[in-house]
Amino acid sequence: MSDYKAFNVVLADKVAHVVINRPEKVNAMNADFWREIIDIFRWIDDTDEVRAVVISGAGKHFSSGIDLMMLASVGSQLGPDVGRNAEKLRRKILELQASFNAVDNCRKPVLAAIQGYCLGGAIDLISACDMRYSTVDAQFSIKEIDIGMAADVGTLQRLPRIIGDGMMRELAFTGRTIEGEEARSMGLVNRTYADADALLDGVMGIAREIASKSPVAIRGTKEMIRYMRDHRVDDGLEYIATWNAAMLQSADLRVAMTAHMSKQKPEFAD
Amino acid sequence: MSDYKAFNVVLADKVAHVVINRPEKVNAMNADFWREIIDIFRWIDDTDEVRAVVISGAGKHFSSGIDLMMLASVGSQLGPDVGRNAEKLRRKILELQASFNAVDNCRKPVLAAIQGYCLGGAIDLISACDMRYSTVDAQFSIKEIDIGMAADVGTLQRLPRIIGDGMMRELAFTGRTIEGEEARSMGLVNRTYADADALLDGVMGIAREIASKSPVAIRGTKEMIRYMRDHRVDDGLEYIATWNAAMLQSADLRVAMTAHMSKQKPEFAD
Amino acid sequence: MSDYKAFNVVLADKVAHVVINRPEKVNAMNADFWREIIDIFRWIDDTDEVRAVVISGAGKHFSSGIDLMMLASVGSQLGPDVGRNAEKLRRKILELQASFNAVDNCRKPVLAAIQGYCLGGAIDLISACDMRYSTVDAQFSIKEIDIGMAADVGTLQRLPRIIGDGMMRELAFTGRTIEGEEARSMGLVNRTYADADALLDGVMGIAREIASKSPVAIRGTKEMIRYMRDHRVDDGLEYIATWNAAMLQSADLRVAMTAHMSKQKPEFAD
Amino acid sequence: MSDYKAFNVVLADKVAHVVINRPEKVNAMNADFWREIIDIFRWIDDTDEVRAVVISGAGKHFSSGIDLMMLASVGSQLGPDVGRNAEKLRRKILELQASFNAVDNCRKPVLAAIQGYCLGGAIDLISACDMRYSTVDAQFSIKEIDIGMAADVGTLQRLPRIIGDGMMRELAFTGRTIEGEEARSMGLVNRTYADADALLDGVMGIAREIASKSPVAIRGTKEMIRYMRDHRVDDGLEYIATWNAAMLQSADLRVAMTAHMSKQKPEFAD
Amino acid sequence: MSDYKAFNVVLADKVAHVVINRPEKVNAMNADFWREIIDIFRWIDDTDEVRAVVISGAGKHFSSGIDLMMLASVGSQLGPDVGRNAEKLRRKILELQASFNAVDNCRKPVLAAIQGYCLGGAIDLISACDMRYSTVDAQFSIKEIDIGMAADVGTLQRLPRIIGDGMMRELAFTGRTIEGEEARSMGLVNRTYADADALLDGVMGIAREIASKSPVAIRGTKEMIRYMRDHRVDDGLEYIATWNAAMLQSADLRVAMTAHMSKQKPEFAD
Amino acid sequence: MSDYKAFNVVLADKVAHVVINRPEKVNAMNADFWREIIDIFRWIDDTDEVRAVVISGAGKHFSSGIDLMMLASVGSQLGPDVGRNAEKLRRKILELQASFNAVDNCRKPVLAAIQGYCLGGAIDLISACDMRYSTVDAQFSIKEIDIGMAADVGTLQRLPRIIGDGMMRELAFTGRTIEGEEARSMGLVNRTYADADALLDGVMGIAREIASKSPVAIRGTKEMIRYMRDHRVDDGLEYIATWNAAMLQSADLRVAMTAHMSKQKPEFAD
Repeated sequence: MSDYKAFNVVLADKVAHVVINRPEKVNAMNADFWREIIDIFRWIDDTDEVRAVVISGAGKHFSSGIDLMMLASVGSQLGPDVGRNAEKLRRKILELQASFNAVDNCRKPVLAAIQGYCLGGAIDLISACDMRYSTVDAQFSIKEIDIGMAADVGTLQRLPRIIGDGMMRELAFTGRTIEGEEARSMGLVNRTYADADALLDGVMGIAREIASKSPVAIRGTKEMIRYMRDHRVDDGLEYIATWNAAMLQSADLRVAMTAHMSKQKPEFAD
Repeated sequence: MSDYKAFNVVLADKVAHVVINRPEKVNAMNADFWREIIDIFRWIDDTDEVRAVVISGAGKHFSSGIDLMMLASVGSQLGPDVGRNAEKLRRKILELQASFNAVDNCRKPVLAAIQGYCLGGAIDLISACDMRYSTVDAQFSIKEIDIGMAADVGTLQRLPRIIGDGMMRELAFTGRTIEGEEARSMGLVNRTYADADALLDGVMGIAREIASKSPVAIRGTKEMIRYMRDHRVDDGLEYIATWNAAMLQSADLRVAMTAHMSKQKPEFAD
Repeated sequence: MSDYKAFNVVLADKVAHVVINRPEKVNAMNADFWREIIDIFRWIDDTDEVRAVVISGAGKHFSSGIDLMMLASVGSQLGPDVGRNAEKLRRKILELQASFNAVDNCRKPVLAAIQGYCLGGAIDLISACDMRYSTVDAQFSIKEIDIGMAADVGTLQRLPRIIGDGMMRELAFTGRTIEGEEARSMGLVNRTYADADALLDGVMGIAREIASKSPVAIRGTKEMIRYMRDHRVDDGLEYIATWNAAMLQSADLRVAMTAHMSKQKPEFAD
Repeated sequence: MSDYKAFNVVLADKVAHVVINRPEKVNAMNADFWREIIDIFRWIDDTDEVRAVVISGAGKHFSSGIDLMMLASVGSQLGPDVGRNAEKLRRKILELQASFNAVDNCRKPVLAAIQGYCLGGAIDLISACDMRYSTVDAQFSIKEIDIGMAADVGTLQRLPRIIGDGMMRELAFTGRTIEGEEARSMGLVNRTYADADALLDGVMGIAREIASKSPVAIRGTKEMIRYMRDHRVDDGLEYIATWNAAMLQSADLRVAMTAHMSKQKPEFAD
Repeated sequence: MSDYKAFNVVLADKVAHVVINRPEKVNAMNADFWREIIDIFRWIDDTDEVRAVVISGAGKHFSSGIDLMMLASVGSQLGPDVGRNAEKLRRKILELQASFNAVDNCRKPVLAAIQGYCLGGAIDLISACDMRYSTVDAQFSIKEIDIGMAADVGTLQRLPRIIGDGMMRELAFTGRTIEGEEARSMGLVNRTYADADALLDGVMGIAREIASKSPVAIRGTKEMIRYMRDHRVDDGLEYIATWNAAMLQSADLRVAMTAHMSKQKPEFAD
Repeated sequence: MSDYKAFNVVLADKVAHVVINRPEKVNAMNADFWREIIDIFRWIDDTDEVRAVVISGAGKHFSSGIDLMMLASVGSQLGPDVGRNAEKLRRKILELQASFNAVDNCRKPVLAAIQGYCLGGAIDLISACDMRYSTVDAQFSIKEIDIGMAADVGTLQRLPRIIGDGMMRELAFTGRTIEGEEARSMGLVNRTYADADALLDGVMGIAREIASKSPVAIRGTKEMIRYMRDHRVDDGLEYIATWNAAMLQSADLRVAMTAHMSKQKPEFAD
């Protein structure tokens, strides 16, 4: 792992722990953040030893969202022609989206462990993760509405698939802050924990559990669920049939079967 | 606002309150209702001062659904040729659907405040709203099954996105009546209130909150969530990037930023 | 009803009760199972008297999923060429999927009554049913991950539409076992019952209720909800308009209306 | 038929002839044009006697496209806020598109007869017709590129389905003018005629031929081809099966069969 | 090959020749035809030795389409209830469609060799084939319009992807008869031949050429082109990547490479 | 422009000329080629001065397709586990596809000028271009079938949208070589030229013509046509309305209008 300015990354027990590491700025997402997250997830994708990922925030909060300085600097680069500005803004937004697409498209499961503030762009980020867990006193808000804009790096696109449509609209229109238990009841997080220590312990445990499974099976499973978010059931059935046509010839199936018969824990190659 | 036979419409505090106003008929949806609702929502779309909408029913009930007299009169217009009847019925159904499409496609958020009966066509109507709120003793039923037909003005199309698929099917197949709390637990309504007064107070409060936000941001947010109901995540990301390419050049962003810095409440133009 | 090896099928009160009948093998799904289920559902589709279907398992458990012997025998038929093996496996998977597609595409509502184990392939099966009900102590697990493969006969394709996306991924990645109440809270089952007797009583009651409705209306309703799982709202509205163009000319509408007026229970032809 | 400012409309032999009637302005599309065309096609849809439609232009040319005065007046209504201007322009474009959607969605076949200039907006219009026929010296050009904009009322959306993708891009990027024969060779028009008289004679003949067929069958055929432009083959097959479920019960089938047996020309009701 | 009533089937040189064999009835498609074609294509799919298929008609004509007697018999089974008739007709149409879906979904390329009449249902059939070839004097007509119905077994769904949209509509609305050369110029057939003998010689030659290629590669190629008819480019790219992930591990690639290096003709296993 | 090993790139008159520059290897696509083409098109996208692109091949041929050495080296990296090999191959194919996606997604129009051989991977490449032009004696072949594989870098996905479906299948199944005129008649190339000099002259002329238009309008036009390849007409109409909401506020419209009025050639900013 190379040195990152906005992150701290540790690999242990086949789990990569990606920590947003600007606690003095409430982990606000600055230019380093948006660029480095792509590199980190490319490394995760390319490193066979990484089998699961946990994202968390250093300090008391997960993240306060996009750095407002950075947003302001985008505005200052605009020129006199509305059309050319529009093209520039459109490409800038697509570029920022690419940072969270890297999380969404990652071949390994990504778990978010959320304490304290999780605001604006931080909601966009956790919407791109596979699963979300939080402390009971975590605070979630689709803050973009309060800076006069529609959220544009993923919240409005991915969150409706995760929480109910009706509540989705209320949160997006009002920017209302919800805490851990309400988040859990609407499916935004899978489970809440009493405090940040219990949270990290719990999430790491789930990640290690996932890391012990066949990586071939985990990757196939993730790809299929990702695919179904946007495709038809019949297409999905054809896709898994084509995928498993190769993967069922993998050794992992035999390893798992043998372990199952002998009541032992299977060991899968990376 | 012009005079309506089936509705009463009031605009105050930038919120349009649309009241179904046939309490002596349990607010059954007659020919006036289906025609006027289109005019009302065209007016809402065209009137910049309207920034949010609340729909409710006058009297003890929200609405008992389509007026059976009206349904009977459609039947009486059929002729001897099955094919030509089919064309006539198909166009009539598409025409009725257009009335609720006007609600669904409205550029401003629409909140339903539901007390008492909410039956048959009334479920189709609230499924086309953005958010739903009710009293604890409200009664919901997909009544169409009991008059021997599949619901055809929107319930079967929009409700599966709002409540769970499994419960959706049970309610549609059995026509079972559920009350406020069960409705809330399955995501049909966002919140329940003790009685009709508390309900209207609460919903108006949420509507006014929404009306105080940037109208440009609210409309963009609604358009994006509407779009995601039927489109892929990657298409949605491209769409918001194209949309915000223009909207981020709006003054509202600066107004919101400035207010944010000075800790004041922003005032947005209509 | 002909004789089946893996099933017992009874038709009473217009409800077909399909019992997986290999209790000594924990109702594991063997070759007979996969072949016979297609025949059974073709018979259900073709028999007007059947208006609703209940699937359950004989003995203490619903089903432990695919018979591992059968899985092993597929593996033993592979040859030396990876490409030709892939084609063979792909076609075999598509063939197994067809068995549960027969459940999914059945024109009559299918209710699953689940007690004891519901593991691996059994989750694929219940995901293809319309509604699911269980005992409080039923045990559900997406077991495929533990035999080193991605589930490929429907769980990953159909279940995300039924339970939340976040919990879906956790269950699929970890294979964690959940019981009745947790299943209910995430929408996997509609209701839980104290024990297997209460369960069957309850589910049969719901099935008989459905069987008493207009079969034309029930079939239209099911087709529309099935269609909406994979289609856009505007396409769905056009589809129901085309469908009801014929169906509203059916006698069932008049039968229901007349009964409604006279406050009597309607009797619909099969 | 009421009086129109931009059109002349004649109904004879069950064919509606819609003539763009501003020859002194090369049939440029002004505000009257965009509004009246919607009324005309609503009348066509509602009038059973109309079974086919021919669109042509009065004088030497079909049409020179959108009236530049009208385009300029849109520009003059813009205010100081880019975001609010964008919303206004977006709605204006959608409004103009609706005029040609009325042609595309018309239930009866629409044939364009094109002589002289067919430029810019005129290409958008004929792309929304069912079939196109022209004189050999007709001149076609996607002129929008030369006024500095991407065509936005239908050419870029509908034409790629009609002519080849490669030639589509060349014409759209260069605005190159092509004549009748080249238009025919790439599928833009179905046939060319020596001059305007032969053209109108020929097209009217085809329209009358279509008007003599079963209107139920013609409407079903058009709906199916329109549907296939945007849908999958399997969805299309299911849709025609649902549609014909009603339409094959029409008298027209018997009328046609009987005529076929007796070698006589069938007469279908409107 | 078993005995068929409506067909004659011969396998030689790895090419299955499927001959419609009711020349005394102009090869009209009767109940035997619709049932047997499914069996034949299941056999083709399951028989590794078959690597390409040619369909032709015995006698002077390819086929006059659906047997009118059969159509009449469907009508005679209808009862008094429009709704139940509609369901019956819908299922019957879906059943007939399944016969041509078997051709469309066949894993091996299917070539149609067409002489004389190719009318109505015969157009539906050849639209489901991979490629079409004809004599210069073959006669094609979408005849359904003349029996008062919209074609419902595939022409309107598959043909628009093969010939231009504008000409498609003209042929479907008018039922106009076209001959070989016009068919070729619009892409309906790939090539024309002077007479039936030259046609069969030519088509058999192309089929044998295809049969000499790697069957793994041919099947992958067909699946991909079939898939692209209904899917997006990005989905198609992902699908071929998943497919070839297994298939590039096949021996055929090495066989072809080796032959290529040594300038010899490769021999592929079935 | 930096130095490239497999290409030579020249920018003149706002047209980037990208020459595949390995004439001694018949411009076979080696590892350098696949990597550098991404860099080149990123540079093109980022360089406002480039307004159109021409791709051609140095020497007598356009390109013989993928370098077989490179293909062989991929094979040599495979290990013993079929499943892990499949994942590796899948990612490798996606990586190669990305090289031609860079061409397809380029914001500026890309014209291919083709002489001599255009085989295998070269067809994949030109399918990703906007327009294609060739000499009369150019030779095209979907060569992949002859090395025992289904083409997997774009031909099977993009070409069916460009040439007819029937001919597409013949070329893909047989690998038959066609020359310039046949290519033109099926829409594969837009025009043929007598020899390589005339070809380059002609294509450069078209590219310069495009480069003289409003770049804002050209980019919008390309984006819309690209979008329509995979989307519905109604989605496309909404997309252009959203796009033009910003772009019609660009100065280019005024520049073009003013030039139009004064009969002068407009000059657009990059």
